[in-house]
Amino acid sequence: MTEQTATSQPTPLAERSPDDLASFAAEQREAYAALKERGLKLDLTRGKPASEQLDLSNDLLTLPRGFTDASGTDTRNYGGLDGIKELREMFAELLWVEPEQLVAGGNSSLTMMKDTLVDLLLHGGVDSPRPWSQEEKVTFVCPVPGYDRHFTLLESFGIEMVTVPMNDDGPDAEAVAALVATDPSIKGMWIVPTYANPSGSVVTQEVAARLASMETAAPDFKIFWDNAYALHHLTRDEAKSADILSLAAAAGHPHRPIMFASTSKITWAGAGVAFLAASVENVKWYLGHLGKGSIGPDKVNQLRHAQFFGSAQGVRDHMVRHREIIAPKFAEVERVLTERLDGLGIATWTRPTGGYFVSLDVLDGTASRVVQLAKEAGIALTPAGSSFPLGDDPRDRNIRLAPTFPPLGQVTEAMEAVATCVLLAAAEQASGAHRA
Amino acid sequence: MTEQTATSQPTPLAERSPDDLASFAAEQREAYAALKERGLKLDLTRGKPASEQLDLSNDLLTLPRGFTDASGTDTRNYGGLDGIKELREMFAELLWVEPEQLVAGGNSSLTMMKDTLVDLLLHGGVDSPRPWSQEEKVTFVCPVPGYDRHFTLLESFGIEMVTVPMNDDGPDAEAVAALVATDPSIKGMWIVPTYANPSGSVVTQEVAARLASMETAAPDFKIFWDNAYALHHLTRDEAKSADILSLAAAAGHPHRPIMFASTSKITWAGAGVAFLAASVENVKWYLGHLGKGSIGPDKVNQLRHAQFFGSAQGVRDHMVRHREIIAPKFAEVERVLTERLDGLGIATWTRPTGGYFVSLDVLDGTASRVVQLAKEAGIALTPAGSSFPLGDDPRDRNIRLAPTFPPLGQVTEAMEAVATCVLLAAAEQASGAHRA
Repeated sequence: MTEQTATSQPTPLAERSPDDLASFAAEQREAYAALKERGLKLDLTRGKPASEQLDLSNDLLTLPRGFTDASGTDTRNYGGLDGIKELREMFAELLWVEPEQLVAGGNSSLTMMKDTLVDLLLHGGVDSPRPWSQEEKVTFVCPVPGYDRHFTLLESFGIEMVTVPMNDDGPDAEAVAALVATDPSIKGMWIVPTYANPSGSVVTQEVAARLASMETAAPDFKIFWDNAYALHHLTRDEAKSADILSLAAAAGHPHRPIMFASTSKITWAGAGVAFLAASVENVKWYLGHLGKGSIGPDKVNQLRHAQFFGSAQGVRDHMVRHREIIAPKFAEVERVLTERLDGLGIATWTRPTGGYFVSLDVLDGTASRVVQLAKEAGIALTPAGSSFPLGDDPRDRNIRLAPTFPPLGQVTEAMEAVATCVLLAAAEQASGAHRA
Repeated sequence: MTEQTATSQPTPLAERSPDDLASFAAEQREAYAALKERGLKLDLTRGKPASEQLDLSNDLLTLPRGFTDASGTDTRNYGGLDGIKELREMFAELLWVEPEQLVAGGNSSLTMMKDTLVDLLLHGGVDSPRPWSQEEKVTFVCPVPGYDRHFTLLESFGIEMVTVPMNDDGPDAEAVAALVATDPSIKGMWIVPTYANPSGSVVTQEVAARLASMETAAPDFKIFWDNAYALHHLTRDEAKSADILSLAAAAGHPHRPIMFASTSKITWAGAGVAFLAASVENVKWYLGHLGKGSIGPDKVNQLRHAQFFGSAQGVRDHMVRHREIIAPKFAEVERVLTERLDGLGIATWTRPTGGYFVSLDVLDGTASRVVQLAKEAGIALTPAGSSFPLGDDPRDRNIRLAPTFPPLGQVTEAMEAVATCVLLAAAEQASGAHRA
């Protein structure tokens, strides 16, 4: 038995004696056996809104009233490639861009990212000497941990990836600057600037300015600024995204950033509206290629959204109701992790003030073991390494937790189970019991 | 003055004396001057549904009831890349395919065509030795006249185009077979099989079977079977599309055809649901690439459509109501063209039994003059040549007429104006007055 009591600070595992570690390991094996007995079936894998959140937008079911937009266009018919004006104006205000810099599209910002990449590959950008597919090699800078679908998309196009650390203030800007200064194959980078997936960090004004102004060997370097969580605050202290379009324009690189956003986690994940914002030239370039394969977005759904929100302030008010639903779930993740793991020296985790994720770092080399243990106990976690290019976390320590979708009670159960798995994996490693 | 009376057959222009032609030309100039005086503003350019047609689907405005599909999935959330089952089953029946061969997507079949082309270019198909972008040259067979957006899409990707005649029974199959047999750069062809744009012709079972079974030098030859008007009958004699997927499978080329369709001209042009149908392997291939840039289509809109139609028969019944609105417009085109142009030997035109277009052939070398005259008189026509690759009609004779969008009275006015322009252009040519 360890000598700690419930109220005292626990002794870090690294400071315990072999005997203490052995009995600690035995305790954890017992706890895990009991967990497995329960036959749970829980899921913390994806950043999906809960039903209760989706219910907030059920008035969409009987909208729009009428079908004519503010300009008098019949939204039911073809046309209007850039989206309806009133919705573009509303989200231009929310995203701190000008309406003419903003395109309102279909139901997926990921699709807009893919289309942009395809256009760059097959046609090149407004400042490209040639289509990217004609380059010997194309490389992206990927801050890690990051969003798995960003990396999968690059991989599908054979684009190489180099990583930089994602810090509390955003990507390590000096590391990025050093890479892009000399390697002309580096054509772009990903950033989730606000409440990043999965770290929750927010890119500061300073980091954004550095990335906007740095010299790049490639003349057509692009920042894919995926502002998926721009409005997704978990506290009253609302982060404001850096104004990347203005910063880049001021630095003489107006065509560098391309911003993406959507209402997927504002209204309905499957039936929202996505946005792309960039320089006016970039927007023209994007629409030019888009128009080859589209006769306009679903303008009825855009009008439905414009009427539902009423105004930019309507969107902000709506996000407060989301916060009221999901903030308690994040608080529960924090409570369980703190109560079960704090002080043992076996895990650190983020305390996000927005977004959809908690990033949990366990002991080096134990993340995949934790995910495996959880799976065998009926708790689905995102595969270890998924926040890294090619799914390869070199330290095998990062686990992405997504607590929004399950009801609060299930979040508690799932997190207690995760803690048990983290403890067992750490005990195994400390005692050399697993894969010695 | 010519000696014809209103009731007698007119004398073909080619058989008239110089004097007769001169007075005929004078008459036409006078008529055209009077037309210009009227200051019309009419548009026959695009195949758009009329407001009255869009109104047929206004019940969509208050659908869906609830948000759960037949499988119990919450359509509001992410997921379901291939579309909701009940809508796929409904349209599988209508398109004569199996549900597992059908994907229900977003609001645009054109986007699905573009995505398919991009996948073939960047990744290659299930039967491709390499991505098409790595071939020295990629060529498509284009039946002409055809759909301008098909050709523009190919052009945007640098794909070369060779033309074959579009006959009453579909593309000239022997001409196609001869081309594809020897040229391995020919990777695909376009077909609008039912009520083709713009000729209105329907691909027969025999032609479809020939195209499905012909030997091709390219192992991964694809038929882009754009069945946009599969259900868009103008008479009670409803054409049945050839079952291209079965024909190709039976001929040992199961992966050759990829079918596209949509509800754009069934419900709402901007807010419908598009479909892709192909072999199960092709569908898996398509979804694999689609999934890199999508977390599912707008399933709420799919559920909205499924509830609106109720069944495949509901779709067929709905199309009868469209027919009742637009058939009189096509009858009016036919009436005016016959009354004004028949027997003069200066124009031929199609009498479609479905679809959205009438294809008008005027005297060789006068189509662009007709369009110019019409424009100057306030009538917008699709640019001459637009039904040919690169906008180049080698005989400069084809004009696409799209009578669905304007109200019936405007169709009459516009067609009277078109006839006046055709007559003047013919008179100019016959009398050597224009660009002699």
